[in-house]
Amino acid sequence: MSDYTQMWSDLGLDLKAHDALLSVLGGAYQDVFLSQKDRPEGMKYFDFVMGEVHGLRIKELMDAKAEGRKVVGSYCVFVPEELILAVDGVSVGLCAGAEFNFEGAEEVLPRNTCALIKSAFGFKMAKVCPYVEASDLIVGENTCDGKKKSWEILAPMVKDLYVIDLPQMKSDTGRELLKSEYRKFIKKLEESSGKKITVESLKKGIEITNAKRQAVNRLSSLRKADPAPISGLDALLVNQIFFYDDPVRFTASVNALCDELEERVKSGKGVFPKGTARVIISGCPMAVPNWKVPAVVESSGAVIVGEESCVGERGVQWLTDDKGASVDDLLDTITDRYFKIDCAVFTPNPSRVEHVKDMYGRLGAQGVIHYSLQFCQPYTIESGPVEAELEKTGIPVLRLETDYSQEDAGKLKTRVEAFRERIEA
Amino acid sequence: MSDYTQMWSDLGLDLKAHDALLSVLGGAYQDVFLSQKDRPEGMKYFDFVMGEVHGLRIKELMDAKAEGRKVVGSYCVFVPEELILAVDGVSVGLCAGAEFNFEGAEEVLPRNTCALIKSAFGFKMAKVCPYVEASDLIVGENTCDGKKKSWEILAPMVKDLYVIDLPQMKSDTGRELLKSEYRKFIKKLEESSGKKITVESLKKGIEITNAKRQAVNRLSSLRKADPAPISGLDALLVNQIFFYDDPVRFTASVNALCDELEERVKSGKGVFPKGTARVIISGCPMAVPNWKVPAVVESSGAVIVGEESCVGERGVQWLTDDKGASVDDLLDTITDRYFKIDCAVFTPNPSRVEHVKDMYGRLGAQGVIHYSLQFCQPYTIESGPVEAELEKTGIPVLRLETDYSQEDAGKLKTRVEAFRERIEA
Repeated sequence: MSDYTQMWSDLGLDLKAHDALLSVLGGAYQDVFLSQKDRPEGMKYFDFVMGEVHGLRIKELMDAKAEGRKVVGSYCVFVPEELILAVDGVSVGLCAGAEFNFEGAEEVLPRNTCALIKSAFGFKMAKVCPYVEASDLIVGENTCDGKKKSWEILAPMVKDLYVIDLPQMKSDTGRELLKSEYRKFIKKLEESSGKKITVESLKKGIEITNAKRQAVNRLSSLRKADPAPISGLDALLVNQIFFYDDPVRFTASVNALCDELEERVKSGKGVFPKGTARVIISGCPMAVPNWKVPAVVESSGAVIVGEESCVGERGVQWLTDDKGASVDDLLDTITDRYFKIDCAVFTPNPSRVEHVKDMYGRLGAQGVIHYSLQFCQPYTIESGPVEAELEKTGIPVLRLETDYSQEDAGKLKTRVEAFRERIEA
Repeated sequence: MSDYTQMWSDLGLDLKAHDALLSVLGGAYQDVFLSQKDRPEGMKYFDFVMGEVHGLRIKELMDAKAEGRKVVGSYCVFVPEELILAVDGVSVGLCAGAEFNFEGAEEVLPRNTCALIKSAFGFKMAKVCPYVEASDLIVGENTCDGKKKSWEILAPMVKDLYVIDLPQMKSDTGRELLKSEYRKFIKKLEESSGKKITVESLKKGIEITNAKRQAVNRLSSLRKADPAPISGLDALLVNQIFFYDDPVRFTASVNALCDELEERVKSGKGVFPKGTARVIISGCPMAVPNWKVPAVVESSGAVIVGEESCVGERGVQWLTDDKGASVDDLLDTITDRYFKIDCAVFTPNPSRVEHVKDMYGRLGAQGVIHYSLQFCQPYTIESGPVEAELEKTGIPVLRLETDYSQEDAGKLKTRVEAFRERIEA
């Protein structure tokens, strides 16, 4: 890695704390990812991206800013990348996947806040996230109570926080509200960037975003093979990098990986023996470097073949229709696309469990692990009815509720192993 | 009390569990309320209501049902009583204030759910709430994540659950969403009752509801006197009974109480010595029989002179404008009125802290106790900025986070006593 000290210092990072973070991250990456056997060659690109996640990628963001492009940071799949690209902006996901400086976060947030939100605050308050520091605009969204109310506390800590409101039910007025919020977001993006969204620029944004989704969907579909051609950990990593990387380069790299995996599938090559117990993970999103549960699962003799998650199929399964003669037409197709997302913040949310059932069949799984973050009320409350509905149709379910600490890893492993034995039987 | 065993049995209550509940409630009422000194004579009516809360009042509901009127149960001040009265319905608040059958509730809800929601489920699942059993229609509302998602689980347990969606921001589209939801609720009420809402019936509903609010606001304003003419516990009880009692009789009884309190104020008579430390309680609603924190405060040598709460001023401070030539005109005034409610589920929510400041000055308080229920994310997250803003303007704040158990009563008392010493100094 090059020496980025000056860049980090210019961004206002706390260099000592940041060094400590990178050292922990590097060690975890080595243990969790690089120690895996028979990884596809195509993962080398993603290893490189991760190695440079606070280095070269940040350099690219700084270069983009120097060219007058805006960096827009966000925490959620309800923030349309199409719109950010349409003002020639750079969309980046912000750090929220590690237990870092929770003591700082708990000075301003209740202890009973989910780890994802505490992590976002911990990173920001410790000045160790170059993405948040490089962002010209940070976009929040009213999904859960935790995020909705914590934006009020985050706002004075960052340069420019903009919040997109969301509906809570999929009614006609709910859709109108979403469309009107996306219209306001266009206005905000145009003001921030000084660029006007045109039909052409928006179609280009849709094209780039759809291509990225198609590549990841292609990767998902290859995982139906037995033996699985790629580990769940590596597939999750690709889904995580989806939010950080240059979209065009990312798409090409995922497609190159898929070409290799197709060959693997043809030749029957996999990362785990044929017949390994196959599970779907469903629930809360896992942001980098939240790899605990997948690492536990895949070191317990099971393989993850799909993620029903915002960092996974829930985030990418739908494309945006690019037909439209005006920006307002395209705003309709964007609204339609995002209104389908079956996040647990909606009530009721029946399509999510149908999606899990579909994945279970399509990907040849034998069980579903429901993952929820402690204190994430939407997913923890929904997990009960989801489990009941899946078990009713004969799909075995293991419900896990955890946080970002490693303390319960042993206990989780015991439960996952017992579940593997159940679904193998 | 008459023998209501047959009625309770007909309602499907678990008589043994219900007897146990009533016995605990009766004892708590004796200890907390009847042991107070110098209570106003006018509280006798409210003592009677509480004594008959599962008896005579339920008999009245059954009589109303026999006459073809519908009983509509709800859990929140966003459900407009005006509309329920306009179809000649009876509006009742549902039981959610006691730790009862939490082990049952935790079979279907996460342990990390607030006590109010667990209580609602505990009562329903143990079959001890005659209000929920007597309700022809139960109305939920999408305020917090906890309630929003738990309606999905409650729905199959009750006869007819209807959910009103709410906006999360006070934008123009947010207001449109609320109005459209109230329009749908009218339709639902008309279908359930077989009665059509007219301008006349709606104006009558507004009149009755406004009169009830005015009476409670009159009570609030009398509490500015020093010595306080009524305890915070008794005033809270009146605010709690607001949700259960016949509205016209309730209004007359509150006004009779106020007449007496006016005399007390004139003669300088109070329930605590002049100069007693005066506090405002601000935060989560306290449903019957959630009296823990007020009992702790008033047994610690301070008097509560106001509640910034849905069971308190937040719920009643605004009247509904009754001017309008059509039902749609009145739907606008109703929407305007309810859209003002500054519940912490809205973001941002600046008028709430302004209201606390106003109450602090208007009622001659020396401190504010912020009360939040554990796992109630909207209020616990908002409590930090509220405290900071109040302390900045010189208003002392004590933040309490608790649940419905009595385990922490001693610890709370120690903290409240220390706070009283701080504000007396």
